[in-house]
Amino acid sequence: MLTDIEIASQCRMRPIKEVAAQLGIDESEYEPYGHYKAKLTQPLFDRLRGRPDGKLVLVTAVNPTPAGEGKTTTTVGLGQAMQKLGENCVIALREPSLGPVFGVKGGAAGGGYAQVVPMEDINLHFTGDMHAITAANNLICACLDNHLQQGNQLGIDPRRVVFKRAMDMNDRALRQIVVGMGGPLSGIPRQDGFLISVASEIMAILCLADDLHDLKQRVGNILLGYTFGRQPVYVRDLHISGAVTALLKDAIKPNLVQTLEGTPAILHGGPFANIAHGCNSVRATRLALKLGDYCFTEAGFGSDLGAEKFLDIKCRQAGLAPSAIVVVATVRALKYNGGVKKDALQQEDLAALQRGLPNLVAHVQNMQQYGVPVVVALNHFYADTGAEIAAVGACLDELGVPWAVSDVFARGGDGGTDVCRLILEACRQPSHFSPIYSEQLPIEEKIAAIAQKIYGADGVDYSAAAQKQIAQIAALGYGKTPVCIAKTQYSLSDDPAKLGRPTGFRLQVKEVRLSAGAGFVVALAGDIMTMPGLPKVPAAESIDIDDEGNITGLF
Amino acid sequence: MLTDIEIASQCRMRPIKEVAAQLGIDESEYEPYGHYKAKLTQPLFDRLRGRPDGKLVLVTAVNPTPAGEGKTTTTVGLGQAMQKLGENCVIALREPSLGPVFGVKGGAAGGGYAQVVPMEDINLHFTGDMHAITAANNLICACLDNHLQQGNQLGIDPRRVVFKRAMDMNDRALRQIVVGMGGPLSGIPRQDGFLISVASEIMAILCLADDLHDLKQRVGNILLGYTFGRQPVYVRDLHISGAVTALLKDAIKPNLVQTLEGTPAILHGGPFANIAHGCNSVRATRLALKLGDYCFTEAGFGSDLGAEKFLDIKCRQAGLAPSAIVVVATVRALKYNGGVKKDALQQEDLAALQRGLPNLVAHVQNMQQYGVPVVVALNHFYADTGAEIAAVGACLDELGVPWAVSDVFARGGDGGTDVCRLILEACRQPSHFSPIYSEQLPIEEKIAAIAQKIYGADGVDYSAAAQKQIAQIAALGYGKTPVCIAKTQYSLSDDPAKLGRPTGFRLQVKEVRLSAGAGFVVALAGDIMTMPGLPKVPAAESIDIDDEGNITGLF
Repeated sequence: MLTDIEIASQCRMRPIKEVAAQLGIDESEYEPYGHYKAKLTQPLFDRLRGRPDGKLVLVTAVNPTPAGEGKTTTTVGLGQAMQKLGENCVIALREPSLGPVFGVKGGAAGGGYAQVVPMEDINLHFTGDMHAITAANNLICACLDNHLQQGNQLGIDPRRVVFKRAMDMNDRALRQIVVGMGGPLSGIPRQDGFLISVASEIMAILCLADDLHDLKQRVGNILLGYTFGRQPVYVRDLHISGAVTALLKDAIKPNLVQTLEGTPAILHGGPFANIAHGCNSVRATRLALKLGDYCFTEAGFGSDLGAEKFLDIKCRQAGLAPSAIVVVATVRALKYNGGVKKDALQQEDLAALQRGLPNLVAHVQNMQQYGVPVVVALNHFYADTGAEIAAVGACLDELGVPWAVSDVFARGGDGGTDVCRLILEACRQPSHFSPIYSEQLPIEEKIAAIAQKIYGADGVDYSAAAQKQIAQIAALGYGKTPVCIAKTQYSLSDDPAKLGRPTGFRLQVKEVRLSAGAGFVVALAGDIMTMPGLPKVPAAESIDIDDEGNITGLF
Repeated sequence: MLTDIEIASQCRMRPIKEVAAQLGIDESEYEPYGHYKAKLTQPLFDRLRGRPDGKLVLVTAVNPTPAGEGKTTTTVGLGQAMQKLGENCVIALREPSLGPVFGVKGGAAGGGYAQVVPMEDINLHFTGDMHAITAANNLICACLDNHLQQGNQLGIDPRRVVFKRAMDMNDRALRQIVVGMGGPLSGIPRQDGFLISVASEIMAILCLADDLHDLKQRVGNILLGYTFGRQPVYVRDLHISGAVTALLKDAIKPNLVQTLEGTPAILHGGPFANIAHGCNSVRATRLALKLGDYCFTEAGFGSDLGAEKFLDIKCRQAGLAPSAIVVVATVRALKYNGGVKKDALQQEDLAALQRGLPNLVAHVQNMQQYGVPVVVALNHFYADTGAEIAAVGACLDELGVPWAVSDVFARGGDGGTDVCRLILEACRQPSHFSPIYSEQLPIEEKIAAIAQKIYGADGVDYSAAAQKQIAQIAALGYGKTPVCIAKTQYSLSDDPAKLGRPTGFRLQVKEVRLSAGAGFVVALAGDIMTMPGLPKVPAAESIDIDDEGNITGLF
């Protein structure tokens, strides 16, 4: 089979103006970025305001293997399949980060015959949103350190700065740094660090903001740190909310591209699914719902991370309600959850698969708790055996959950029509979406609700620091916001070694942080990497460009 | 008078496709970025290859005041004036950096009625070139630190890394930092620092590269540091030249915009004029020469910095030859050179002006040394008196140099026609351009040639370190490249306090660095700031954006 970039480069893309025209978008309602990308502008939002929404379908997954389970690929492929079925479907996805592109993962624009294109643009700078977010983040930091240098009128304690610099790169050497060295003209020395930009609160804010007005308010609300008198300092105290928002004036516009089969796709924003809420922007989803009869969207990692946050944070804040949820499962991931090492996942192992199936059951039941019809897409890998697929099917049949094999990586939209027929059926059923917890509860009770209802924990333990932080956040008036739990993606629990459907554990919350601009509280359970490192042989060593500008080695 | 952004926002821009069509550029030869910006692509270069070049006119200046002398404004306004005279002129300029925009200087897209537009886009992210350069720079750094972390097979000495990280921001706290703190999983601790992106060698390389092939070669040649055995390590040794170049695949395409009066302008690249060579890309200039009968371009700071490098580095490497040179002078700058403090420049002071005039004479004579006809544009400021203007004119008349007042800030193109008539006359004269030194000379002799012929120094003194570095660079085989001298912009000498036309001094070279990718040797005379700081009240505090996306406070 061809590589992803070979397949993508063989695609004859339609000019983006044709894709826009198909959706009824006028030339005055978008800005082209080259011939195959466009930014969708405010006049489009304004015109569509009164139009009824299409149906929202969330694609999530079981707990993944380190290689990922093809959730983006499945989402793209199912969108293509809807088009094959004659339905008007718009896909809403996150934008890739450069860090993983040059690190391990390669591209993040789908795979095989289910990709969004132009894939090399999407995987590199795309329309510049990630860079705008990085710049906005770092303008705040430069102004903060300048404030310290220029007399520190606000009395900010340099040891209590909580807002970090950002870079869209996997660069472990920047995780913990000392800035301001070099004497009196070069700043106040203090400990600092860089986040990868997708872990920045600016990214979370951009993805949750209703519009420019809301964006500027949220930017102003970002907590920077505390004064020597332990009072909070926010971005608005530096008088730069306007300048930071000006840097985001184009980044707030969702990006229109297409799949290999010409299905419209809106890619916008890309927050991490652990430290942040892990799904594309509210604005992109809203637009896709106005433009399509169906909007297919995805949330990061397994349903315990991305989907929970999509439902409890994004849908709650934005007033969205999904009509159906697709849980992507793979034989590989279920065997991994059954204890098979990642190098041995190619071999049939029905016993391990049986041990792993409770993980799938947990994810399905978790999603059903939200009152939304659930469908399972079994994403086909070439090494899957008929017996393995039958075993998964038997489990799901017993559970009474509709399922079908998705083979979109190898077959494009044609490989997804079986799943889509089930989705269409699910969308005809009533959906009674409601979040899993009330945001009015105390912070500890919200964390406990997620831990018990979604993770299957017996309860939650808090470190002394976390208890203090919770009290402080409540005292600042942020006790009634949703909770964003940062934990490993490899387990329903907070321990990556606990596979399958773990029981008999308590969630260990070590630290609680306030993302006041994003409007949620982050509870950290375990060591969460907010700045990844590169592997021994980074993907960067395989990427090349020839004299004509053709890129190889992206996958 | 209105502010710059008010004037710019009142401009009815022509769609960029009209500007392109006026230049005979086909739709297949550019990529639109919104409706008012476009990137010019390789097919355009290919088609125009055989077309004869227009005439190249360089705009430079006397030594500036800290507020700048309106060189960009003059270049833009003169381009507009050429259009008023019915000439086909294309302007080639540098792209602004975000650092100054949020710091002191405000925008860098001209001023008053001589601006390039859309000014807020140009001053913010524009088409993303600056961010691509930053990302390319930092990919190198991440891979370098990853190499150290993953066993350091090349034996790189972490104390002898010379390539720094980059950010497009004024952020003094990043000048000197310690990276890799936090224990064995978070890198090797070492001293590092950030440059502002415009001071990065990647920027210099992008601006000197002929094409993608040349760009990749140059990227591979960047010197990263030395091994424990004192052997040089280059980017190519990390096997990432292709990945770094892939990040620059769009940044290498020049950007087409327009002036307030619709004159085509190509903005591309923006290297510092001290540590780097201070002018827009070779590709932009070449394209402007193919598309216009005249290309007006500018080089940073005074002629001792930007123009010398334009002529001795860029024109030499790219095989360009200017037909005329415009020296921009202001009454303000000449009074400043005559010893007037910057707060008192508004008052008439003929005695100070007389003391400052030798500075103008020096710049004119310096440029005449290159064998190119010289014209002086006296850029008018509202506080200039008739007596002051007459005094400058008398001096120039005595020198036999054609001059005229330029009033493009207040009057747009109409304010520049007098100067343009002189330029047209100059372009009809023979030009016998040749660089001021032979690149075959030893490094010390090249530095001495610039110091004596341009700065008026009696000679050059080298620190012990600089002598050692020169020997090392020659031993590495880079002794026959041009020299890029980094020194203060406020004096012809290396001492910002020596105003006017200083004599009786020797240039003090403290350090010599190799920019092997750019293809020049940097000699540092004085403390050169490669990462500026923000002022006590940064411009960021004045910048705002309203709910409709209108930006205020850019100037």
